Amino acid sequence: MTNTSTNRSGAAAHTVGLDIGGTKILGALLDAGGGLVATTRLATELGPEGVVRSAARATRDVVAAAGLDLSAVGGIGLGIPGIVDAAAGTVKHAVNLGVRDELPLAERLSAALGGVPVVVENDLNVAAVGAAHVLEREGAQAASCHDDLTVSDGGAGAVLAPGVPASAYHEDLAFLALGTGVASGLVMDGRLRRGVSGAAGEIGHVPVDPAGPECSCGQRGCIETFVSGTALATAWPSRHGKPSPVELFEAADAGNADAIRVRKRFADAVAAAVRMLVLTVDVHYVVLGGGVAQLGRPLLDVVRDSLREQAEVSPFLASLGLPERVTLAPSDVPVAAVGAAVLGRRDERAELPAKVDGAAPAPALAGTKTRGR
Amino acid sequence: MTNTSTNRSGAAAHTVGLDIGGTKILGALLDAGGGLVATTRLATELGPEGVVRSAARATRDVVAAAGLDLSAVGGIGLGIPGIVDAAAGTVKHAVNLGVRDELPLAERLSAALGGVPVVVENDLNVAAVGAAHVLEREGAQAASCHDDLTVSDGGAGAVLAPGVPASAYHEDLAFLALGTGVASGLVMDGRLRRGVSGAAGEIGHVPVDPAGPECSCGQRGCIETFVSGTALATAWPSRHGKPSPVELFEAADAGNADAIRVRKRFADAVAAAVRMLVLTVDVHYVVLGGGVAQLGRPLLDVVRDSLREQAEVSPFLASLGLPERVTLAPSDVPVAAVGAAVLGRRDERAELPAKVDGAAPAPALAGTKTRGR
Repeated sequence: MTNTSTNRSGAAAHTVGLDIGGTKILGALLDAGGGLVATTRLATELGPEGVVRSAARATRDVVAAAGLDLSAVGGIGLGIPGIVDAAAGTVKHAVNLGVRDELPLAERLSAALGGVPVVVENDLNVAAVGAAHVLEREGAQAASCHDDLTVSDGGAGAVLAPGVPASAYHEDLAFLALGTGVASGLVMDGRLRRGVSGAAGEIGHVPVDPAGPECSCGQRGCIETFVSGTALATAWPSRHGKPSPVELFEAADAGNADAIRVRKRFADAVAAAVRMLVLTVDVHYVVLGGGVAQLGRPLLDVVRDSLREQAEVSPFLASLGLPERVTLAPSDVPVAAVGAAVLGRRDERAELPAKVDGAAPAPALAGTKTRGR
Repeated sequence: MTNTSTNRSGAAAHTVGLDIGGTKILGALLDAGGGLVATTRLATELGPEGVVRSAARATRDVVAAAGLDLSAVGGIGLGIPGIVDAAAGTVKHAVNLGVRDELPLAERLSAALGGVPVVVENDLNVAAVGAAHVLEREGAQAASCHDDLTVSDGGAGAVLAPGVPASAYHEDLAFLALGTGVASGLVMDGRLRRGVSGAAGEIGHVPVDPAGPECSCGQRGCIETFVSGTALATAWPSRHGKPSPVELFEAADAGNADAIRVRKRFADAVAAAVRMLVLTVDVHYVVLGGGVAQLGRPLLDVVRDSLREQAEVSPFLASLGLPERVTLAPSDVPVAAVGAAVLGRRDERAELPAKVDGAAPAPALAGTKTRGR
């Protein structure tokens, strides 16, 4: 993803990315080389007008934070939890934002900002693009700087092919969001995969146990019934005012047998999601993100333990080096906002992922990818 | 996949594709426009020397069948069941071919044929590329010509996005091979997806039932334990000299309750594979191929019934239109050989799928993708 955007005078330009959530907007400003220059964070105003207004304000804020003005910006990318039609630049059913009907968000924000080109994307897709961008730039050095960014930890060498520079793999990953729900964004060989109906990455609704609990989607034993924040809050309700995943891990660490069992089932299901992603598309990294991933290193440890346990019974799985492919989303960078800015760098519609990926709007997937984070 | 190959004089050229199996080699000759000009079929000679010799003979045969000679050929593609390093042009562990150690097949065959460029690919990958090529060319008209090629049957319109020509979707599919084992080849947005370690499409080894049978891979309840030809032969051994899947379907049609139960479990597991492929990468088509798919229309019918049943309990699944995405591999065209010829049309290494996909050799995946067909 090395395309650069140009501003209206034709010079290489900065781009802005916004990660628009139900309570806050995170903003990022990238320079022409893709370097992170400034970030911002402000409260989201709800409703169509509110979303446009606060997105415009976030854009101006992050540009001003870098001592620049809007003329330096060649493109804006937005990540938003709703049903996005990337080709049309619209969003609908963004329930947490108070947006129900189709909102021509790209057009409205562009008009509010003097005509800067705006692209709109699903929030998980921008997170995947952002994670790829950060991994690409930080590369193998990251592990030495960030304890929780474990690119070289454990040896990506297990799956690196001889003669291929490590950098070639950084734009090949699944961003696995463990949030209220569970879903994934996919970047393969540097290209965002939306799928022909915008449903790529909806792995939360793949059943893995016919005897499992009923899922909100109508099926039984979906990955989401074991892995999501909702599932954890049901299995281990918060009792001491901390988030349920935190209390669960603390209780398990303290030796509570029930907590150990619940945590194990959770870790095994995350491991199942990782295994499924790798066996289906063989991505180089699976990056754990979303609210539950704020657990950080302890989450990574239990998931890797489960993957190692799986590999013990299967030489085939062992050959794939799954524990080494899993990593945590960087916690010191607003990955989704960065990913949105990367997409905003593509100043030509033609530079969006090609025909099929770019042209197909998402169908009405009630309660799915929009809940992933 | 519209790149054309040129022959050594620089003119647009024909290409040859070979699907090399343990008993036979199927060959296809494509013209510069991608049209199928001739096919051939001959017995495979085993061992490294035998494979090279019979591949050379198949190439000469299919070229001669079109009244041409080798000077008309700009490139050759091979599909082979073994561990392929596409970048190096080598294959190893092709057990059914009597090839154990690494064989520089591209180099050897090229030398035997006066220097024509040769590319080597995994057999499932060429099948996926071939299916995409055939669907692209035959498009929606196919259903009216071939009863078993059901592109427009049931209305691909269910998942076609408004304003997107049907042709845009034909190079977006999973080729799901139901053979001795189960695995998939993936073409997304016209690009072959190998994965960073050549393991993309290994969905046969995704567990779907923790209480299921032990799998040869060491895990339990893998898709392959329910779906493969081996699984069917175990659940319904052949008693009357016909292939086990044929006898199973006949007995079920005749009302045998056991057969109905075994067929249902099989169809449900194929449907689970389809669901997983679509929820993970949202491909437009899932093409059923491999030995078991010779059942033809009755196979398609039971798989679609299972998918409809799944959709009945889940509005989310229903919105994805899974029954309409499933189709049968064309039975009147050697798809894998055609796909190999399509890959042979890329006369520059750089035109192979880009860096990550092209550069990574497969790891030692004992007994997996090589068994898919």
